[in-house]
Amino acid sequence: MSAINIGVIGCGYWGPNLLRNFAENEDAQLRWICDTDADRLASMARRYPMATVTTDYCELVNDVALDAVAVVTPVATHYAIGRDLLRGGKHVLLEKPLTANTHEAEELIELAEANKLALMVDHTFVYTGAVRKMKEIVSSGELGDILYFDSVRINLGLFQRDINVLLDLAPHDLSIMDYLIERQPEGLSAIGSCHIEPGIENIAYLIMKFPGDFIAHFHFNWLAPVKIRHTLIAGSRKMILYDDIEPTEKVRVYDKGVTTNRVHDREADYQTLVSYRTGDVWAPKLDTTEALRYVVTEFLDAIRLRRAPLTDGHAGLRVVRLLQAAQESLRNGGKFTLISASAQTAPAV
Amino acid sequence: MSAINIGVIGCGYWGPNLLRNFAENEDAQLRWICDTDADRLASMARRYPMATVTTDYCELVNDVALDAVAVVTPVATHYAIGRDLLRGGKHVLLEKPLTANTHEAEELIELAEANKLALMVDHTFVYTGAVRKMKEIVSSGELGDILYFDSVRINLGLFQRDINVLLDLAPHDLSIMDYLIERQPEGLSAIGSCHIEPGIENIAYLIMKFPGDFIAHFHFNWLAPVKIRHTLIAGSRKMILYDDIEPTEKVRVYDKGVTTNRVHDREADYQTLVSYRTGDVWAPKLDTTEALRYVVTEFLDAIRLRRAPLTDGHAGLRVVRLLQAAQESLRNGGKFTLISASAQTAPAV
Amino acid sequence: MSAINIGVIGCGYWGPNLLRNFAENEDAQLRWICDTDADRLASMARRYPMATVTTDYCELVNDVALDAVAVVTPVATHYAIGRDLLRGGKHVLLEKPLTANTHEAEELIELAEANKLALMVDHTFVYTGAVRKMKEIVSSGELGDILYFDSVRINLGLFQRDINVLLDLAPHDLSIMDYLIERQPEGLSAIGSCHIEPGIENIAYLIMKFPGDFIAHFHFNWLAPVKIRHTLIAGSRKMILYDDIEPTEKVRVYDKGVTTNRVHDREADYQTLVSYRTGDVWAPKLDTTEALRYVVTEFLDAIRLRRAPLTDGHAGLRVVRLLQAAQESLRNGGKFTLISASAQTAPAV
Amino acid sequence: MSAINIGVIGCGYWGPNLLRNFAENEDAQLRWICDTDADRLASMARRYPMATVTTDYCELVNDVALDAVAVVTPVATHYAIGRDLLRGGKHVLLEKPLTANTHEAEELIELAEANKLALMVDHTFVYTGAVRKMKEIVSSGELGDILYFDSVRINLGLFQRDINVLLDLAPHDLSIMDYLIERQPEGLSAIGSCHIEPGIENIAYLIMKFPGDFIAHFHFNWLAPVKIRHTLIAGSRKMILYDDIEPTEKVRVYDKGVTTNRVHDREADYQTLVSYRTGDVWAPKLDTTEALRYVVTEFLDAIRLRRAPLTDGHAGLRVVRLLQAAQESLRNGGKFTLISASAQTAPAV
Repeated sequence: MSAINIGVIGCGYWGPNLLRNFAENEDAQLRWICDTDADRLASMARRYPMATVTTDYCELVNDVALDAVAVVTPVATHYAIGRDLLRGGKHVLLEKPLTANTHEAEELIELAEANKLALMVDHTFVYTGAVRKMKEIVSSGELGDILYFDSVRINLGLFQRDINVLLDLAPHDLSIMDYLIERQPEGLSAIGSCHIEPGIENIAYLIMKFPGDFIAHFHFNWLAPVKIRHTLIAGSRKMILYDDIEPTEKVRVYDKGVTTNRVHDREADYQTLVSYRTGDVWAPKLDTTEALRYVVTEFLDAIRLRRAPLTDGHAGLRVVRLLQAAQESLRNGGKFTLISASAQTAPAV
Repeated sequence: MSAINIGVIGCGYWGPNLLRNFAENEDAQLRWICDTDADRLASMARRYPMATVTTDYCELVNDVALDAVAVVTPVATHYAIGRDLLRGGKHVLLEKPLTANTHEAEELIELAEANKLALMVDHTFVYTGAVRKMKEIVSSGELGDILYFDSVRINLGLFQRDINVLLDLAPHDLSIMDYLIERQPEGLSAIGSCHIEPGIENIAYLIMKFPGDFIAHFHFNWLAPVKIRHTLIAGSRKMILYDDIEPTEKVRVYDKGVTTNRVHDREADYQTLVSYRTGDVWAPKLDTTEALRYVVTEFLDAIRLRRAPLTDGHAGLRVVRLLQAAQESLRNGGKFTLISASAQTAPAV
Repeated sequence: MSAINIGVIGCGYWGPNLLRNFAENEDAQLRWICDTDADRLASMARRYPMATVTTDYCELVNDVALDAVAVVTPVATHYAIGRDLLRGGKHVLLEKPLTANTHEAEELIELAEANKLALMVDHTFVYTGAVRKMKEIVSSGELGDILYFDSVRINLGLFQRDINVLLDLAPHDLSIMDYLIERQPEGLSAIGSCHIEPGIENIAYLIMKFPGDFIAHFHFNWLAPVKIRHTLIAGSRKMILYDDIEPTEKVRVYDKGVTTNRVHDREADYQTLVSYRTGDVWAPKLDTTEALRYVVTEFLDAIRLRRAPLTDGHAGLRVVRLLQAAQESLRNGGKFTLISASAQTAPAV
Repeated sequence: MSAINIGVIGCGYWGPNLLRNFAENEDAQLRWICDTDADRLASMARRYPMATVTTDYCELVNDVALDAVAVVTPVATHYAIGRDLLRGGKHVLLEKPLTANTHEAEELIELAEANKLALMVDHTFVYTGAVRKMKEIVSSGELGDILYFDSVRINLGLFQRDINVLLDLAPHDLSIMDYLIERQPEGLSAIGSCHIEPGIENIAYLIMKFPGDFIAHFHFNWLAPVKIRHTLIAGSRKMILYDDIEPTEKVRVYDKGVTTNRVHDREADYQTLVSYRTGDVWAPKLDTTEALRYVVTEFLDAIRLRRAPLTDGHAGLRVVRLLQAAQESLRNGGKFTLISASAQTAPAV
């Protein structure tokens, strides 16, 4: 089969990484590079002489020989560009978060389905060796019942002028949780504070309630003295600590837990006997391939095999739905915010 | 001056530590040991032959030669025993938390003040070398404006049958924050989950809102695969990481922060320029003396010098107030719970 | 069977730990406590009223009802006391190192064998959960060929006035290596320096050459700013890192190594292809029982079952032989010092 | 002043980094790129179109407009290329180690001095923020008397076919010690073992004796399960731990040490009282500029200002002298090998 013709819109911080991965992939042919900044465009043109450059993404929409486009622009522009590309018959890979709100996401999903085009969101972390290994472990059932998901992503980080710390960092952890846990919360509450710039939270806590006793919590912080990227996934039989700072042993599986037995007891009729269990710790070897390489491969495979990509529009929508509710709660001082019932059905993944 | 005659009620887990520290203190004379368990009492009698033992604490109330009593019994009994002792003219040191609710605490405070007796709560952590060094640093002002307090106390911990993880662990961190930050929140929200025993939360998150942009957050957890005891205290100029697991370098002061300047800008009229600052890290030497030794000394000094102890009844009340509100919020699924206005006045410390 | 009557000579730093473990063991009856210091003796007498105390160890030698004695005195006295006890028909447990030189050790071994008495050395580390687990792993063969043993034991440690850092710390690591590796070196070299007190090395490096390409190296240091207790045991298939500072995950097994293939190559006739292999890391659960409890049990079992204890006189002799050669090399500025051929035969363990 | 015309010989692993740093330096003009591999040369030509490429370094020797050359070729070729360049009147920067033996190094030094040309060795680590900060601390005298230097550089590293682990890794640590300590040893001993390829040591220990009680020790290892890069520099007043794996706090200064007092004592006439001292720990902020940028600047400055570079030929010779002695000792099974007396004079730095 001939190579898939690819265009990339947006050459800021992340775009060049996608460009490089498309350029290195044998199944792709880099055909267009688009950016509004002429200098950046010139620099990319030198590096990828096989591609045509433009400042107008409509040229990509109108090029009948172009198959698919990766959009790496600010989130506010995702919907309009994505819509035009899908209407133009192009498969679309959108940077995360998929869109600025759920309505936009739903419309793109409909457009893609109506036109039988691939719509994919770049939830990069889902394609890392660490997250894929955790998926394998969670899917195998060896953790037992999943009890909670606790994530801390803090650092003296890059302050963003246009979005707060939640919109900046939460897409990472929400997409990881969505992939690993496959459950949708009933509601959530988000609280933060603005210490640097009025109106832009630099610290935020997000807590989610789910049907049953599963619970999820997130700490996002741009103003911490140390860099911590910890995720705890506790099961009734085993627990995972995912430490993304660790150079190699990022995932540790602890054979630890609590055993409870309800026994008849002379004094108290029935009583729960609780005993702690501590066993081995295991750090599985992880695939160290760059995650974006798998993102690109997944996008190309989905196009070629006419199947939904792993992180399809629905995955993107689920994350956008949580972000939107979290922002609403944040604006309302932490008010508990319901997630629409339809969202709580099992994900399509 | 002659030694202060001391009685200790309760010889379970913590009581023997107080007994030992009173026995080793030259200003104290151990006179009574009281417990309802005869075996424990016999064992303590062998170790401290100078003291008289009893299963009835009223003997202590009625002993006119007895000056002061440390009460190390379950929290439900603190009020009644404390009240009887204060009415009997004894100075009282109560184990934390001070009482089961704020009304009880207020009554004990009134009783103590009316009878000019010392009422102290054993907020042990306040007397550790690490917390005292942090107090020194915070008081010096070198952190700049205090921005947030973030605490994580998790472990595969001892499951308590009668109280949840919040009542078990929060007194530590709330007393530390009360001492270091000296601010009272407007309200709080607590959410948790019960994975081991119905009705007994083994994981809980507590978030507090304060006047201004200061914010505090706590994670308490009995069911974590790793032991973490981290507290971040961020200031506008410097930040502290307090890691109680570290054997010696428990307190690290990071000369890190963000500098913001509002400048006139041609494009946007006024704009905030944000720049990150990273400097040295400093781990001060800490006093490694057992904290309980200072607790005992503070109690004896307060009695002798007729002054309020550092962790007096008001400090105990402030912590009880937060615990009570947190429990209420927990019972109401995380509902934001106001702290009474009177509580938000500056602490008496 | 009736309990074995036990005497303990020496109640300094380590003696009380042995006393406690004998007192708690159902198969032992504590009968004598001996020390030259009357105060210590009085303190032990209060704690163990069932035992008779004395300042003269000859009383123990002459008590026909006494079965066995643990000797926890300075190493210079081990030989004379051990000899008298063995001649008196007592089983003997000697603190490490067994004796001050190999001649003394050999004489004690002969005496014990001639009198059919147990002679054991308290190589405590051999009985820890970590070392026993490593023995299990090494014995299973899963490491492949053992390539090297590298040990670092450094700290700002207690300066000893009478012995240097090598005599103080090497018995630990040499007894661990002796137990795990079961090989004797052909020779060794030790170099150190005296920064605190002339003539007393506070830092020393010890390197050993073995038949074949196995190599062992040790770093002992009382004057280091950080506490490190690392041992690497590298095999051709897997490697162990034993970190005794870690609270729980003291032993990590790395599925890492190098694969070499000698292949025919057009350019160089034959060439070795080297490829690195990195797999999972595994931290086995360790028995956390106090090691001395197993020491005491092993001593009592050896007596009762009339078998050699795990760390018998020969194990003690092997360690003494290495210490003696290391001291000789140290005195000669690091001169390579041969170990007598007889020592290189397989250990009797 | 006009830019200095630069040529670079060798575009393998390290060469491109030097190329990039010369290209980015305003005081340099990249004029020649030389390599024997045509593909590499073509790739560099595309990246640096301002330079002329060649496979024959004689073209550089003969170009009268060329000022200076960086030589990044295998060590066996350093002498011949360096000699030709110096004879051709070029300033020379040689990759470390300077040459394969001391005779070659001495000859190049003579040639450079006779022709008044700069001869510099790329001891990169000397130019890192961490090492420069340590130099500042050592030079200030705050460590007190320097007692020992202990370095561990181990990893599951890249096996080199042509040189052993000592020649591969020791240049780093020897150049660091040479720069920080400024002392030359009387002699050294090196012992290693070959587990992968006969004749190529993959583990080696190197110990050095100095006049006085200062001592230095090194552990080099390609076959370790973990990556450790630790250097301890102990002083009588303070100690440094340099951990190059740490992302930011690479240098820690411990206010720890031992205080000794010789006092008159009734029992023992004179006795040394030893007391340990533990104070604060301090991790200074480090300059994170790429070290090679400073290497290039130092080379250009030395040329322009007609002064010796910081790591001049003599510094290179001192490291080569130690490497040569270490190799000799290694070949002789660890035999103590003297360093020639002339070498022990203070370095010219």
